Amino acid sequence: MGLQRTILTIAGSDSSGGAGIQADLRTFAALGHYGTSAITALTAQNTTGVQGVHGTPPYFLEQQIYSVLDDLDVQAIKTGMLFDAENTRATVRALKSHYTGRTMPPLVCDPVCVSTSGHSLLAPEALEVLTKDLFPLTALITPNKSEAELLLSRSISSIEDMLSAARDLLLCGPRAVLLKGGHLTAILADVDSLTRAHPEVAVVRDGLYGDDMEILALNAPQSTKIVIDVLCEADGPTAVLVRPWIDSTSTHGTGCTLSAALACALAEGTTVSEAAVHATAYTHLGIQTAIKLGAGHGPLNHLHSVARMGVPPRTPTNPYPFTQLLIKSSRVIWKEYVEHAFVRRLGEGTLSKESFIHFIKQDYHYLKYYARAYSLLAAKSNTFPHIDSATQTILNVLREISTHGAFCAEFGVSADELEQTREASATSAYGGYLMDVGLQGDTTKLLMALLACLLGYGEVGLWLKRAAAERPESKIVLEGNPYRRWIEDYSGEEYQAAVRAGLETIEARAAADPPSAARLDEWRAVWERCTRLEKAFWDMALELQE
Amino acid sequence: MGLQRTILTIAGSDSSGGAGIQADLRTFAALGHYGTSAITALTAQNTTGVQGVHGTPPYFLEQQIYSVLDDLDVQAIKTGMLFDAENTRATVRALKSHYTGRTMPPLVCDPVCVSTSGHSLLAPEALEVLTKDLFPLTALITPNKSEAELLLSRSISSIEDMLSAARDLLLCGPRAVLLKGGHLTAILADVDSLTRAHPEVAVVRDGLYGDDMEILALNAPQSTKIVIDVLCEADGPTAVLVRPWIDSTSTHGTGCTLSAALACALAEGTTVSEAAVHATAYTHLGIQTAIKLGAGHGPLNHLHSVARMGVPPRTPTNPYPFTQLLIKSSRVIWKEYVEHAFVRRLGEGTLSKESFIHFIKQDYHYLKYYARAYSLLAAKSNTFPHIDSATQTILNVLREISTHGAFCAEFGVSADELEQTREASATSAYGGYLMDVGLQGDTTKLLMALLACLLGYGEVGLWLKRAAAERPESKIVLEGNPYRRWIEDYSGEEYQAAVRAGLETIEARAAADPPSAARLDEWRAVWERCTRLEKAFWDMALELQE
Repeated sequence: MGLQRTILTIAGSDSSGGAGIQADLRTFAALGHYGTSAITALTAQNTTGVQGVHGTPPYFLEQQIYSVLDDLDVQAIKTGMLFDAENTRATVRALKSHYTGRTMPPLVCDPVCVSTSGHSLLAPEALEVLTKDLFPLTALITPNKSEAELLLSRSISSIEDMLSAARDLLLCGPRAVLLKGGHLTAILADVDSLTRAHPEVAVVRDGLYGDDMEILALNAPQSTKIVIDVLCEADGPTAVLVRPWIDSTSTHGTGCTLSAALACALAEGTTVSEAAVHATAYTHLGIQTAIKLGAGHGPLNHLHSVARMGVPPRTPTNPYPFTQLLIKSSRVIWKEYVEHAFVRRLGEGTLSKESFIHFIKQDYHYLKYYARAYSLLAAKSNTFPHIDSATQTILNVLREISTHGAFCAEFGVSADELEQTREASATSAYGGYLMDVGLQGDTTKLLMALLACLLGYGEVGLWLKRAAAERPESKIVLEGNPYRRWIEDYSGEEYQAAVRAGLETIEARAAADPPSAARLDEWRAVWERCTRLEKAFWDMALELQE
Repeated sequence: MGLQRTILTIAGSDSSGGAGIQADLRTFAALGHYGTSAITALTAQNTTGVQGVHGTPPYFLEQQIYSVLDDLDVQAIKTGMLFDAENTRATVRALKSHYTGRTMPPLVCDPVCVSTSGHSLLAPEALEVLTKDLFPLTALITPNKSEAELLLSRSISSIEDMLSAARDLLLCGPRAVLLKGGHLTAILADVDSLTRAHPEVAVVRDGLYGDDMEILALNAPQSTKIVIDVLCEADGPTAVLVRPWIDSTSTHGTGCTLSAALACALAEGTTVSEAAVHATAYTHLGIQTAIKLGAGHGPLNHLHSVARMGVPPRTPTNPYPFTQLLIKSSRVIWKEYVEHAFVRRLGEGTLSKESFIHFIKQDYHYLKYYARAYSLLAAKSNTFPHIDSATQTILNVLREISTHGAFCAEFGVSADELEQTREASATSAYGGYLMDVGLQGDTTKLLMALLACLLGYGEVGLWLKRAAAERPESKIVLEGNPYRRWIEDYSGEEYQAAVRAGLETIEARAAADPPSAARLDEWRAVWERCTRLEKAFWDMALELQE
């Protein structure tokens, strides 16, 4: 993901959100960066055209630029629509003045002259200011075909023309020129001709055309329509970037998006040629994945590069957001589990001895599965700390089993009887499920299954203890309760420390490997299944089911 | 994630990007929605204060609103800083005019009067227009303490004051009031007092304070500082939203962010009270996870709700982006594998018979592991199509083994000799790794391991065939080549169909469960390890290693 950089766009505002500073800021955000803006003009526009333009006074454009640069550490700047000669001059003045005596960060200039819908966005007299005063400050300019034609006063109708136009534009002073060929018809066969005529020109192919893997190569016919951009660097080779042409009306703001993505890459410190590859790929995917909006030329999808997080971030005051989400998403069944009639009666001391004995006999068998599942977890782990952590739990279960023996003896159940007791269906269902999850999935999925038990018993222990101490109306008591020791075990510091460690483990897993929506669903399903199996286990004990 | 909605913000522009339409648009994007904007005024500001304001002419504000509403299907609207009475009137006029005879989508009004830094952002004479003309159109207004004081001309200094202020503001006509208490000092103990005095008021606790899970409850002292918002609905109960107070300077644009997030939730169709819970949580996390920017009050982190995608989306012209990424990230070793000297000599027909025999003997053992690993994949699968797909591969391997026998006989190797041959280290290393990955991870991880082999052999088959046909200088030949059948098998349609199915499988996995950075690293590591093991396998065969 990399560090967040701060980037400034100096451009027009597009009310419809598809172009201008709105497209720039969305691109910066989608690529992980922080955007600031100085608005050169407001436009009232939508996907069908530009309905009005209202220029910003030059002094106020300058003021916006100073406000940003004086306070924030800007690592790249892009200019878009500059509106007129005055605002172009104001931009140059502000940049030169602020960066007197210090290095200006990379400046990308998209010399916007005409909108996709054909509206003129730059006063003719501004052209000279642009080329004479602004271009020499830039790391890169990104004209399209018609802008290059305007700047050079000649027509461009072939890839050859593009190559010479890009070279001639370099003479205006930018350190590089990316001449965009989106408005030029080209086919795959043209790339071969180009390579033959200009062996010195590097060809960068985006997507499938000409990837050097045979199994990935798409057999596209030579007549396939493509888009070619030409990149000329003052002190580097010339390259052409080739990618599939897309038949789409979602192209409003393509140029803004490309130059904004270029600014992001340059802010990250990449070379101009790497930046061009990343930015053209990002823009291409924005068109390709766009949802059609509006009646005319709609916006790109800028957000193809990000996905919504299913789990909120951990914070000091909310360290367990993932566990909360798991429990909330199965709240009803979770409450039925932790506040089960078996638990309540156990807390009141009114649970029948038969039910409790049935429970501890079946728990003995369950713990065998539980220990085996942790052994499987250890076997599936590939770091010593993970192997250690799983093994400590196995040791805890083994200790629990030895005290279990003494505990059972109190209730008149011998060790032999424990071992001989037939496993109830609920026990087999739960134990089998743990082993199955362990076989099917990775360690995180297995942990989801194992922790529903750990955390649930921790919750039961705590709420019984709290109710006994604070809520006499609950009838939960410790004094004289035949099951007091059970409650004290699960509410005790040793068990609760294990609960906290368990919470820490799953939260750390979810934070280190933020789950996709599909994976989150899978984790939730495991959690809910175990919650149901826990409830069924207590049903079984209470109702003395076989 | 839900459907993308289109939302309109009518507000000021903040050059520093932390507030205004910039914060709104970033919030819309972070919550999965498409933002449009009508700018009421430009500000030149940064984290230290507002250096200048330049109002938009009312006619042009109206024009922006019409441009958006006439073309796009807007599902929620928010207003922020409206600048002055004229622009407030223009806003009301444009909305009323556009929505004459049709239902206005939910309108959230953040009655911005003063900036966080203390700058007045609304002309005093605009207050009356706001309350009389705009409030009656709104689903919700979101004043903070000082705005509510200004609107009601009385001071607010307690939670009690907030409750009555929220109720009184309802009388101005909004359907709900969310009165923000961020500027009021409150502590956890106040919530208990409030509940005692007003049992009818619902308390919604965000984060840990009072969650009804014992194990998740943080033992915060009663003196802990909190933030309380009051939500009053015209036709609903009153609720207070409680969350931890954060000691942070990253609060520039908090109000804009909250109202933008509210508009998102309402656009999605949630109730006002659900919207309030979601939006306050989103804003809280924005402050909590912010990176400090600028010398004064910096922006929130709006993007805590999204993560960068590691794998680009699949498109018609680039159907295998994930496989490309895997191969590119291990390009050097991948080339050493698929263009190994063993492969080249095999293609030239110059490979020694001993090496080839050593290879097919060891391949026999390897295929046993390979079949077992696919059996493990079937055992780990939980849908019939996945079990079917794994089983078909096992059947393919079993068929391959029977033709293997005939093939080996050609080279004078008997079935018995095949079975008796001792396994070389390279074979054990590779086979053991497949089984280990199968034990450790989930089915996707195991597939990553299995496909490096499938795809690599597919690539070898294709490039040898292509070189034989098209590149005589490569010396690769089929005619008279003793290994011709091997090349034809792997470049043949049957094997290549399996390659395409394999590509489809991993691409579908990566698209359905977009990997986190950590998981992507894990998948890449498995892929690269297998690529190394493949190369080592050919080293072993070529050099007749034991």
